[in-house]
Amino acid sequence: MGRHHTSHFTVEFGDCDPAQIVFYPNYFRWMDAASLRFFRAAGVPAWREFEAECGIIGTPVVDASARFLRPASYGDLIEVDTVVAEWRGKSFVMSHIIRRDADVLVEGREVRVFARRNPDDHRRVQAVEVPASIRQWCG
Amino acid sequence: MGRHHTSHFTVEFGDCDPAQIVFYPNYFRWMDAASLRFFRAAGVPAWREFEAECGIIGTPVVDASARFLRPASYGDLIEVDTVVAEWRGKSFVMSHIIRRDADVLVEGREVRVFARRNPDDHRRVQAVEVPASIRQWCG
Amino acid sequence: MGRHHTSHFTVEFGDCDPAQIVFYPNYFRWMDAASLRFFRAAGVPAWREFEAECGIIGTPVVDASARFLRPASYGDLIEVDTVVAEWRGKSFVMSHIIRRDADVLVEGREVRVFARRNPDDHRRVQAVEVPASIRQWCG
Amino acid sequence: MGRHHTSHFTVEFGDCDPAQIVFYPNYFRWMDAASLRFFRAAGVPAWREFEAECGIIGTPVVDASARFLRPASYGDLIEVDTVVAEWRGKSFVMSHIIRRDADVLVEGREVRVFARRNPDDHRRVQAVEVPASIRQWCG
Repeated sequence: MGRHHTSHFTVEFGDCDPAQIVFYPNYFRWMDAASLRFFRAAGVPAWREFEAECGIIGTPVVDASARFLRPASYGDLIEVDTVVAEWRGKSFVMSHIIRRDADVLVEGREVRVFARRNPDDHRRVQAVEVPASIRQWCG
Repeated sequence: MGRHHTSHFTVEFGDCDPAQIVFYPNYFRWMDAASLRFFRAAGVPAWREFEAECGIIGTPVVDASARFLRPASYGDLIEVDTVVAEWRGKSFVMSHIIRRDADVLVEGREVRVFARRNPDDHRRVQAVEVPASIRQWCG
Repeated sequence: MGRHHTSHFTVEFGDCDPAQIVFYPNYFRWMDAASLRFFRAAGVPAWREFEAECGIIGTPVVDASARFLRPASYGDLIEVDTVVAEWRGKSFVMSHIIRRDADVLVEGREVRVFARRNPDDHRRVQAVEVPASIRQWCG
Repeated sequence: MGRHHTSHFTVEFGDCDPAQIVFYPNYFRWMDAASLRFFRAAGVPAWREFEAECGIIGTPVVDASARFLRPASYGDLIEVDTVVAEWRGKSFVMSHIIRRDADVLVEGREVRVFARRNPDDHRRVQAVEVPASIRQWCG
C-alpha cells in the first residue's frame, strides 16, 4: 500500500442522535471528506481546476460500507487514516480506519471511479480510466 | 399577501440531537426546501432550466432568522406554510410558519435575492432585479 | 421474507453536492429513517415507550453498506422498499432498495442489534436477544 | 464584552450545494458547535456532568439569525469568533462572526436559555435563571 493520510475531526453535539452517540451516516460524511483531503495532500489539484485540464469532475462513490465497532459521542476527537487499498481499471478502493486515540471505532471502505461529464449530455457523467498522473501522485 | 404553499415533512430520528429534540439548523433546511417547493408549486421552472433561459441560477439567502417557540421530536409531522411577505427591488422576503397540528413551533424568515453568474467571472454570482415573470407566477 | 414497508422521500436541493447529485451519506440517512418507519408500520411502539417497558432503547447499526447504481438530483421523488432479510440471534439484517419510478438507484443493507443500556454503566449499551414480540410484529 | 473564543472549521465538499457554495443551514451548525466550544473553553463542564450537578441539560436556542455577506466553498478554512454579547435574566445572546482570513462571511446571533428537565414531566424542559457560576466562568 502507498501513501497514507490522516484527517482530524471533532464530533459535535449536532452530529449525535437521541441515543447520545454519533448518527451513523455522519461517519460516511467524514470518510468522504477524508478522501478529498487525501487527494489534496497527495498534490492532486482541486476538481474545479482538474476539470478545466482533463475533464475529470471528481470521484463519485459506487459502493460504500462500514463496520461500527465502538460508539463515539460529542466532544470526542477522531482521526481517519486513509489509503488507496487497490487500483483497478476504472475504479479504486479507499480504506478508512477511524480511531479515537488507540481505539478503532469504524472500518470503512469506498469504491470510487474517476468521472467526467458525458460529452453528449452534460448532465450525465461517465467513468474513465484512472489517470496515470493520479496514480503517480497517490503512489 | 399572495400565494401560500404548504410543505410537509417528517421529523426523523437523525434530525434530533442528544436533547431528544430537533437540532435547530434542520429547521432552516426545511425552510430552504419549502422555499423551493413554493416556487415549483407557483409554476417557476427548475433553476436548471431557468438558467438556460434567463441566466438565473437560484435565490441565495442573504439573511435568515427564526424564533423557536415549541420543540419537536422524531415521529412528529410538521407543515411549513410559506408566502412571499415582501417584494423589494433586488430582494424579497419569504415567511415560513412551521406547525405541528395547530401548534406553531417556529416562525422563520429568509431574505433572498435572484442571482445569475457574473459574466466576467463564472465562479461569482450577482443579484439581479426580480424578474417580472416570477412576480406574476408568485402573485 | 416477511413484511415489506415502502417509505417516500423527496430529494431536496440541500441534499445534493456541487456535482449536482445526492451527497451519498444522505442515502444512509434515508435508510435509517426507513428502518424506523418499518418498525412503526409493523406496530412496534416508539423506542421511548419501549424502553420503559423492556429496556430496549433502539437498534444501533453495526454494519452498513450500499451500492450506488444511478444518481438522483433535487426534485426527484424516491421510495425505499425495506424488509428484514435475515434474523440472527442478537442481530438482524435490513435490506433497502431505493428506486425512482422503476429505476433502482441504490441497494442498501444495514445490520442492526437490539440494544439496552448497560445496567452497570448507563452511558454504555449492550446487545440483547431479538425480542420474540418484535419478530412476531415484523413477520 | 467578556471572553472571546475562536473555533476553526473546514468547509467540506458535502457542506456545499449545487450552486457550489455552502448550503446556508450549515452555518448554523457551525455556530451551534462554536457555542459549545465557547463554554468548554471557558471551563464549563460537559452538559452530561452539569446535569448531575445542578440539573441543567444544555442551552436550547430560542432565536437565531444570520446575515450572509460573502459565500464560501469547499476547501475554505473558516473561523468563528464567539462572545456572549448580552446576559439577560433567563436568556443570553451569543454573537458569532464567521471569517475566511480577513473577510467577514457571516454575522450570526443566537438567543439561548439555560434549561433543566421539568420535574413534573421529564420529557419537557424549562428555562432557569442563568447560574452565577456560568456567568463567572464566561466573564
